[in-house]
Amino acid sequence: MIDKLIEKIQKTGAPIVVGLDPTMKFVPDHIKAAAFEEKGETLEGAAEAVWLFNKEIIDKTYDLIPAVKPQIAMYEQFGLPGLVTFKKTVDYCKEKGLVVIGDIKRGDIGSTSAAYATAHLGKVQVGSSFCAGFDEDFVTVNPYLGSDGVQPFIDVCKEEKRGIFVLVKTSNPSSGEFQDRLVQTGDGKITFSDKPLYEVVGEKVAEWSEQLMGEKGYSYIGAVVGATYPEQGRVLRKVMPKSFILVPGYGAQGGTGKDLIHFFDENRLGAIVNSSRGIIAAYQSEKYSKFGSANFADASRQAVVDMITDIDQAFASVGK
Amino acid sequence: MIDKLIEKIQKTGAPIVVGLDPTMKFVPDHIKAAAFEEKGETLEGAAEAVWLFNKEIIDKTYDLIPAVKPQIAMYEQFGLPGLVTFKKTVDYCKEKGLVVIGDIKRGDIGSTSAAYATAHLGKVQVGSSFCAGFDEDFVTVNPYLGSDGVQPFIDVCKEEKRGIFVLVKTSNPSSGEFQDRLVQTGDGKITFSDKPLYEVVGEKVAEWSEQLMGEKGYSYIGAVVGATYPEQGRVLRKVMPKSFILVPGYGAQGGTGKDLIHFFDENRLGAIVNSSRGIIAAYQSEKYSKFGSANFADASRQAVVDMITDIDQAFASVGK
Repeated sequence: MIDKLIEKIQKTGAPIVVGLDPTMKFVPDHIKAAAFEEKGETLEGAAEAVWLFNKEIIDKTYDLIPAVKPQIAMYEQFGLPGLVTFKKTVDYCKEKGLVVIGDIKRGDIGSTSAAYATAHLGKVQVGSSFCAGFDEDFVTVNPYLGSDGVQPFIDVCKEEKRGIFVLVKTSNPSSGEFQDRLVQTGDGKITFSDKPLYEVVGEKVAEWSEQLMGEKGYSYIGAVVGATYPEQGRVLRKVMPKSFILVPGYGAQGGTGKDLIHFFDENRLGAIVNSSRGIIAAYQSEKYSKFGSANFADASRQAVVDMITDIDQAFASVGK
Repeated sequence: MIDKLIEKIQKTGAPIVVGLDPTMKFVPDHIKAAAFEEKGETLEGAAEAVWLFNKEIIDKTYDLIPAVKPQIAMYEQFGLPGLVTFKKTVDYCKEKGLVVIGDIKRGDIGSTSAAYATAHLGKVQVGSSFCAGFDEDFVTVNPYLGSDGVQPFIDVCKEEKRGIFVLVKTSNPSSGEFQDRLVQTGDGKITFSDKPLYEVVGEKVAEWSEQLMGEKGYSYIGAVVGATYPEQGRVLRKVMPKSFILVPGYGAQGGTGKDLIHFFDENRLGAIVNSSRGIIAAYQSEKYSKFGSANFADASRQAVVDMITDIDQAFASVGK
């Protein structure tokens, strides 16, 4: 699946992923009205509105991009009907040939992580049948529980040829509270180094990545590093040379094209940049207001084109 | 909700929670046969089997215990039908008067954590309506992203009078890989102390706990500390004096009654001990094999009685 992702990035020339993270306030009124008319102001109505919203954005952008990243929290907030829309979105994106990164940030003790891995990347045995639950191509994983919470995901990746992105340095303002602390390194005796926790987690990702390499130089085991921390991105690119980096935080969270350069290798590979609000709610920003809410998905398409240009220019400025 | 939990612990004399973490291998054959007969060897069939299994265990244990802890991964593995069973289980347990701790271990950047908090503890606005998604009483939260990933949960707790348990020191074998590392403390200048990461996270939990105190001396903001690490439990009990500690790892993971003593205060409060496999799959162990698979829920009831006795004896042995 990492090879398919790389092929699609090369074909589209767009190392970007659209974050399908809908909230009610992003959905245009005419779509909400249609959905509520049919299903009421209920969880079902909200889930229908989100589905109609997603579908139009996907239809208007799928030919430009390699991948989407639905954030499952935004669907869970609408309960079971919301998760029905999550699953419909995953399936529809796969039909359109997109790589689907489920942003689920799961992670638990071994047996529980195995169940999450089965749920999102694998198949569960029921009697003599094997059934897929949510069936994404990649998922994001939280490493706080250590190796035995991550390994079950890697094991399912091996079976199913799917991949994961492990949280290393997240894009949010308080990510440094624990992740940036300098930590003890070495086993047994207490020696301190100048390595922060995120770098130690990055070293683990580098180790894990060796377990499942694709054919194009990158592993199925990647990492998440926020665009909002470009200096850390530069370091982590070297710490995890074989891991693709999923980079959130571009656009609405403050990251810009020039912040991204060091996440990539010399061939403009090795990273994929996410934008959520900046794309799916583009019509609500002044820059794209001319499209109006009726043409919200055209605004999203234009925002994708502009994001690709922004990253291209940043590459050009450093001769990459 | 923390006050209700304490009242129920005092009423039952049982500081325990039953982990409703079903897998297909725990479900007796006669239940699987009935469910597959009706719904096939499908996700729907598996979800029905799990529901029938859960319901019988709840019916046979609810009068002895204050709370249950369904692990959502075990339901997610059966896709959407599995989550329908998760929701039915939450609702049924609440009908029976049980406190429901959703073991979801979510945690993300602020806006996303807010969506998870809404999904599991709050209500989402749809038009002019407010709708509850999964509607648990407590959930577990992963702190790797720092304060702004945890605060949205606390905010919803304040509105809804619900609670959280933040992962501090988890019960799994590799939990020390990151959580036990000694870390830099103090802001700005680099000074090292003898504090491991879990203790620094525990100090944060203590801070957060001040934001939302119940009326019985404990906060709505609790922590998770594994029974498998009793020495760390002793330290963390003091670091977080106002936080209830949810203690997994008893039974199948290796924790015993005597390991638990230091998690509790002088009044046998301050902690609640989880057992999952040891209770729900009791009939599969030699100790309870006399019940047979037909009476699996009676075996679960006996295992609950024995667990209460084990903890009582441990208290008695130290005069608590």
